[in-house]
Amino acid sequence: MSERVDRLSQALEEPLLVTNPTNVYYLSGFKSSNAALLVELDGVRLFTDFRYAEAARSVEGVRFEETKRGLLADLAGRLSGPVGFEADYMSYAGWQALGSGAIEPAPRRGLVERLRAVKDKRELATIRQACEITDRMFERLVGERFVGRAELDIAWRIAELFHEEGGELAFESIVASGPNAARPHARAGSREIRVGETVVIDTGCTVDGYTSDYTRTFVTGPVDDEVDEAYAVVLAAQQAALEVIRAGLAGVEADAAARRVVDETPFAGTFGHGLGHGLGLEVHESPRMSTESTDTLETGNVVTVEPGVYLEGRFGIRIEDDVAVTEGGVDNFTGFRKDLITVG
Amino acid sequence: MSERVDRLSQALEEPLLVTNPTNVYYLSGFKSSNAALLVELDGVRLFTDFRYAEAARSVEGVRFEETKRGLLADLAGRLSGPVGFEADYMSYAGWQALGSGAIEPAPRRGLVERLRAVKDKRELATIRQACEITDRMFERLVGERFVGRAELDIAWRIAELFHEEGGELAFESIVASGPNAARPHARAGSREIRVGETVVIDTGCTVDGYTSDYTRTFVTGPVDDEVDEAYAVVLAAQQAALEVIRAGLAGVEADAAARRVVDETPFAGTFGHGLGHGLGLEVHESPRMSTESTDTLETGNVVTVEPGVYLEGRFGIRIEDDVAVTEGGVDNFTGFRKDLITVG
Repeated sequence: MSERVDRLSQALEEPLLVTNPTNVYYLSGFKSSNAALLVELDGVRLFTDFRYAEAARSVEGVRFEETKRGLLADLAGRLSGPVGFEADYMSYAGWQALGSGAIEPAPRRGLVERLRAVKDKRELATIRQACEITDRMFERLVGERFVGRAELDIAWRIAELFHEEGGELAFESIVASGPNAARPHARAGSREIRVGETVVIDTGCTVDGYTSDYTRTFVTGPVDDEVDEAYAVVLAAQQAALEVIRAGLAGVEADAAARRVVDETPFAGTFGHGLGHGLGLEVHESPRMSTESTDTLETGNVVTVEPGVYLEGRFGIRIEDDVAVTEGGVDNFTGFRKDLITVG
Repeated sequence: MSERVDRLSQALEEPLLVTNPTNVYYLSGFKSSNAALLVELDGVRLFTDFRYAEAARSVEGVRFEETKRGLLADLAGRLSGPVGFEADYMSYAGWQALGSGAIEPAPRRGLVERLRAVKDKRELATIRQACEITDRMFERLVGERFVGRAELDIAWRIAELFHEEGGELAFESIVASGPNAARPHARAGSREIRVGETVVIDTGCTVDGYTSDYTRTFVTGPVDDEVDEAYAVVLAAQQAALEVIRAGLAGVEADAAARRVVDETPFAGTFGHGLGHGLGLEVHESPRMSTESTDTLETGNVVTVEPGVYLEGRFGIRIEDDVAVTEGGVDNFTGFRKDLITVG
């Protein structure tokens, strides 16, 4: 049994049916959109349908059983007694199918996610590699012309640069120019970038399944003093967070450290989202740092630190680094510069 | 109220809370990872958090209310009485959060999906456009050298060609060569393509949110007679399905028409997946055509038709077209040729 499965087993009150594909992959190395692992005290069973059967047979440390496409209904006829399930992932309908036979489904939350939140050395090295590729991508990108290009053209160019540097785009890039930048989750569109605007770029790449997630805000020529002021505030807010983040700090406290800086300025109340989130096999995972967070940071977490200021209809600023949490502070994986860069 | 919302309202027994992001987008044009639409008899309310608030305010035909990041728990404090929810999408934990206040959650299935399965003229035209781009991508791809390139290099080249032709890659391409081709859901890997192999390529592009999804199988130089035989069987199986598919046919019957052809040959039992699936805003949607399907085809459905033959450890063949279902048959959107092409 792998060390990950071993640690998971120790936390279980009953066998756990793992159906979140990312969790299945984390525990077994097996990738499928329709698979389940049953983690029992004496071993692990892997269930999937014909399409993935050949690959499933080569997974080590599990007993493979082929199921129908309707996997949960199939399991309802195979298993019995108490079986934990992933309540944050399994749908209500899935839960009903699972419970339609002799299984007594028991809702469980965050069991594998808690393991995933603490990265081992190999995982840290892989995320660091994704960050180095992201540094190189940004270095090359800011050497190019922005003015006159559509947001979507920049977004495609980012994908190309990642590929050339040895990563692959991890999620749809945000390239938000001018007033679009005031929307924290704007998408890249056909809008042409003009002179004298802010451009928020939020992107990341994947290396061996692990992702980076950076944001930088650029300007295209001279801008209002207010943009410079907002940039300085966001940078100071990020710095304040980076100074307090360490193992043992609550996610709400990390968030508050950055938020306090913004709220002492004329931009008070414009930092409308959380400070950051865990990063790994998924772009958003545990732990969270926000006003609603119940998490406490641990050594081995990798989190984004991304305060922002958003002035509706006008402009937005966000600066986002990826850092590993350590005993005494952070190991910042992000090498790309953070002064306000003017692009052409 | 939009015509789609209007049709949905007529099917409701109580207000429906739509939380599947694709369904939210289909009904309102609003894109978010954390939003809900409450469709009531007298109107539609849109809920989302700060990050999407500015975009939400510009959505027409809805009343917008900003919520916390924990959207369902927030709604539990705002709404009361019977509220339908999407049981195939909402997680068990989400259902618990939604029911933690005065709401009486009622599980509903497939209400929006059934509307989405029947495409209107504009949707059909958009999918046709995605298919034309896919035709051009394949035309260009087969003019290139395959032998000596890694599967992943071909996969990236597909993304480039789609972009150049005016679409964007819709999902991670399958490029499966040699024995990998025997896995219906193989992923592209570092394996170098050699002479005398089959190469299964399953890919598609997105245009305005709508996808294509094609598969073609190529050979790299002379192959065993068995490969030619298997190819002819898969092609005949697809042809048999294309001849019977029309509005009113059951998904199981369409599947059986193709399966019968395979099962009358020495390749009996090697077509281990369903015949096809609906295609639209998602790559896999209603209706399904398989041995487990309970769907009946309707005019306006767009489905893949993709029989295959898989010989473990040796090779695989799959041929996949995208067709619109009509009163009298199919309108095949797929222009790219289906004879067995030898690539260099």
